[in-house]
Amino acid sequence: MEVRNRYVATRRHIEGAPTEADFEVREETARWSPDSGEVLVRNLYLSIDPYQLNRMKRSSASHLAVDGILPGQRIAAYAAGEVVASASPEYAAGDVVAGVLGWEDYTLFRPSPAVLMSKVDAAAVFPLSHHISVLGTSGMTAYGGLFEVCKPASGEKVFVSAASGSVGSLVGQFAKLAGCYVVGCAGTKAKVDLLKDKLGFDDAFNYKEEPDLKSALKRYFPDGIDIYFENVGGEMLEAALANMNTYGRVALSGVISEYTGSRRRAVPDLLEVIYKRITIRGFFAWDFLPKFAEFNAAIGEWVRQGKVQVIEDVSDGLESVPSAFAALFSGQNVGKKLVKLA
Amino acid sequence: MEVRNRYVATRRHIEGAPTEADFEVREETARWSPDSGEVLVRNLYLSIDPYQLNRMKRSSASHLAVDGILPGQRIAAYAAGEVVASASPEYAAGDVVAGVLGWEDYTLFRPSPAVLMSKVDAAAVFPLSHHISVLGTSGMTAYGGLFEVCKPASGEKVFVSAASGSVGSLVGQFAKLAGCYVVGCAGTKAKVDLLKDKLGFDDAFNYKEEPDLKSALKRYFPDGIDIYFENVGGEMLEAALANMNTYGRVALSGVISEYTGSRRRAVPDLLEVIYKRITIRGFFAWDFLPKFAEFNAAIGEWVRQGKVQVIEDVSDGLESVPSAFAALFSGQNVGKKLVKLA
Repeated sequence: MEVRNRYVATRRHIEGAPTEADFEVREETARWSPDSGEVLVRNLYLSIDPYQLNRMKRSSASHLAVDGILPGQRIAAYAAGEVVASASPEYAAGDVVAGVLGWEDYTLFRPSPAVLMSKVDAAAVFPLSHHISVLGTSGMTAYGGLFEVCKPASGEKVFVSAASGSVGSLVGQFAKLAGCYVVGCAGTKAKVDLLKDKLGFDDAFNYKEEPDLKSALKRYFPDGIDIYFENVGGEMLEAALANMNTYGRVALSGVISEYTGSRRRAVPDLLEVIYKRITIRGFFAWDFLPKFAEFNAAIGEWVRQGKVQVIEDVSDGLESVPSAFAALFSGQNVGKKLVKLA
Repeated sequence: MEVRNRYVATRRHIEGAPTEADFEVREETARWSPDSGEVLVRNLYLSIDPYQLNRMKRSSASHLAVDGILPGQRIAAYAAGEVVASASPEYAAGDVVAGVLGWEDYTLFRPSPAVLMSKVDAAAVFPLSHHISVLGTSGMTAYGGLFEVCKPASGEKVFVSAASGSVGSLVGQFAKLAGCYVVGCAGTKAKVDLLKDKLGFDDAFNYKEEPDLKSALKRYFPDGIDIYFENVGGEMLEAALANMNTYGRVALSGVISEYTGSRRRAVPDLLEVIYKRITIRGFFAWDFLPKFAEFNAAIGEWVRQGKVQVIEDVSDGLESVPSAFAALFSGQNVGKKLVKLA
């Protein structure tokens, strides 16, 4: 079987903030045969995540953990789709799957324990999009980062930056369910309102209206911060460290303000880290792969009970991938950014 | 009982590198009475530690954990001494103690669980000085930082900065006993030779002769660093992070290069921390207080068997405290800096 496959590729390595012009939609013919051992998937929802920018750089620490992306190449990405043809006994045409596919119409994959892929229950109560947001890597990052890395105790004070984003919006809600006091920050009034009115954060603020982040955090956390879920980097990390309590924990999930190289990087006060015995731990979703099913069972139950609101920001069509991706770095998205394919 | 007590005090808050002129020796009369509940100790060995500089600043993150030092005040410090008079049933004249005493001839203390003080076995095989070096807070920092914070596995690669210092010289030896590959750095050829020839480090280098610390560490750790025991800060931390392996651990014990504010502070690449899932943990000796006896039993056994060499750098007389302390910041000491009182 042959299908015409359109895919999004970078035109060049990207070193600063991405723009639509950095990308192009290319075409190829994808060939599947019954003796290939491969599964052909028609993609339905694509996950648009900030970390992909690091893969697009010529060099980045991320290349140590995730393959770099070469200009012109197909771009692997978390996505959900429907099996069109399968040469593997594990999958059949019509199966719906979520896992590592790509920014493209069709993806061929070869089932292996090394490939993150799971079948989505067709009778499930959740919209398909949830499987690449709250039940995908965003949920895994939020749940694992909060519960495994930060180990929150009831009553602890939790600060979440980029709190209206795909991960932050979940972290804050999970922390509330763990009995914590939660404050988030975001970059617009609408986002701040969302955090307080819809997502149940105890408080929230617009960091762009705070000339002094250290003082702002002191105001929002008069008793200090026990847990900082870090998605931003730069000055925000410095301000959070200055306001952290003894034995504070920083889960380092992303540092979006440092990805584009346009803002100054964090110069953490290491004396704060020593004397407050702070732990800063970097991690990412794949670390929790062995617990994926366990996490999703817990998260799914919360969603089912209406205890967790899922915010998804959906664009339409493969050609919208570049603009959707670029928008992540100008703070235009709310919640999980997805692209729905026709 | 009244004794004339000489003590070392700061003349002013110290913000940069300390000099002898920042200190003075003052006198007071210390009064002990049989109904005071207090114990009067004649100090014999004083511990001279870099962290004290942070206490001497007008403001510092260290003040959150350890009292700041006001000009003219007595300066609490780890020390060993002999009980001269006791109004506590727990101590008797002639007992030898080690714990929090002060940079002074005599210290009065009131026994309490909050005061770190232990009786030293008079029949012990160790010189008294060992009780404030390898069996004091330096040993506790090194042992706890390595085994509790870093959890080394046999065969792991360990980098120790300020490796000829009070803590670093022990960390490296402990890590060798744990089966690790250990490289240290120091600031003179004599120190480097000491690390390799006497302390059993697998390798060592003079950081002052390395124009590019990242390349230097790449040379010394072609397979990457698993554990970095950080005593320095600044560029050294950046270079270590750049060379760390996945799941690397950084024990943040001290950042002497950042204490004086004269060198630039570390701007860690947070992408390295995320993608290599590095944990950076601040700690200090007091965190391990509940395990003090356990640690010292293990350390003492190694010293007794000759498996750990104890390097002590002893100055004579209370009036040498200021110069001994200032010398810590110009890299003049080797091993644990102590002052022996007459």
